[in-house]
Amino acid sequence: MTVATSPVSQLIEPVARLIDAFARLPGVGPKTAQRLTYHVLRAPDTEARTLAAALIAVRDDVVYCERCFDFATGPLCPVCADPSRDDGRLCVVEEPLDVLAIERTRAFRGRYHVLHGAISPVDGIGPQRLRIQELIERVEARVDDGDPVTEVVLATNPTLEGEATALYIAERLSGKVGAVSRIARGIPVGGDLEYADEVTLVRALQGRQQIDGAGER
Amino acid sequence: MTVATSPVSQLIEPVARLIDAFARLPGVGPKTAQRLTYHVLRAPDTEARTLAAALIAVRDDVVYCERCFDFATGPLCPVCADPSRDDGRLCVVEEPLDVLAIERTRAFRGRYHVLHGAISPVDGIGPQRLRIQELIERVEARVDDGDPVTEVVLATNPTLEGEATALYIAERLSGKVGAVSRIARGIPVGGDLEYADEVTLVRALQGRQQIDGAGER
Repeated sequence: MTVATSPVSQLIEPVARLIDAFARLPGVGPKTAQRLTYHVLRAPDTEARTLAAALIAVRDDVVYCERCFDFATGPLCPVCADPSRDDGRLCVVEEPLDVLAIERTRAFRGRYHVLHGAISPVDGIGPQRLRIQELIERVEARVDDGDPVTEVVLATNPTLEGEATALYIAERLSGKVGAVSRIARGIPVGGDLEYADEVTLVRALQGRQQIDGAGER
Repeated sequence: MTVATSPVSQLIEPVARLIDAFARLPGVGPKTAQRLTYHVLRAPDTEARTLAAALIAVRDDVVYCERCFDFATGPLCPVCADPSRDDGRLCVVEEPLDVLAIERTRAFRGRYHVLHGAISPVDGIGPQRLRIQELIERVEARVDDGDPVTEVVLATNPTLEGEATALYIAERLSGKVGAVSRIARGIPVGGDLEYADEVTLVRALQGRQQIDGAGER
């Protein structure tokens, strides 16, 4: 074999373009993008066309729920449109994926409010960039109706940004709702105390709860 | 919070469909598909449409090169269409991605032949399912033209299937080409002898090459 100095033969244009488009997705590097592209080339024709149609449909048909700002296909998302949900409780999350995660637990039957981010001065994201004003107005409208929200659960991430956002919202909500709560931070179930970071361990200790029936005889 | 027994609220249909379509890609699990879908929903509109268009284009515009069976946009792929490549050498690979990998090395300036798989009796893939007959005919045509191929490099993977395929092709090519070679199997560059598996180590020993100028005075 001879070592040539001429440039590597170019990828054919449609293949290069698809690799490029895949590589723009989060967590997809150039190698993965290549593998996905070659998969699409070899897979049944319908697979590529189904994905293409789904991509277009998601952009054409999905809007924000006008009440909670989760994704929706009509004015309201399925949760906001569901009459069986508890209007008294409102769970505030950063992202639509967080709604999905909480819904999977089946442990919350109230309504949601999606902020679409968290306060992050470093990234130039102030409260006005999020759906916080809409949350306040939503809560205030309930006060005006004489049926205030009984509990707002702040379920932003336990990160610097999420905590700051929760604190900011808690302040803004003060006096407008029955109670404001924050999801518990502690050792994950199945986790190992030995490997927990100090901050989490401190939170786990601070958030300790008495076991009913033990002690205090 | 109350633990409800009713089913988790359904994903809106366009979102569910895109998650489903993404999840059909290799290496993309349900969680990743969800993350990709929510990314597409939040990214600029053009990103989704560019990916959709690239998917359609790759299926509409890409065909097999009629000579080497790599992907192409016309009758011939860029390598087969390039008059500066060495017609005397033919490198046989399993997949189009292998062509890309070899091209990146710039160490081979001959032509390719893509089999689109390897012989695998377990998976019911016999030689007739691959582009082996086309390879033989390609080589025989060169014999008929009085300009036989000087070397066929068998660059199938060093797996059970790849080795079997290489052996099978070597037999079929016997007497029709100047030489048949197999890519070297050994310790990867930067690898560690201590952690090499026995089979690789045996191959590395068997494939040892004399260092010019040392010994034999």
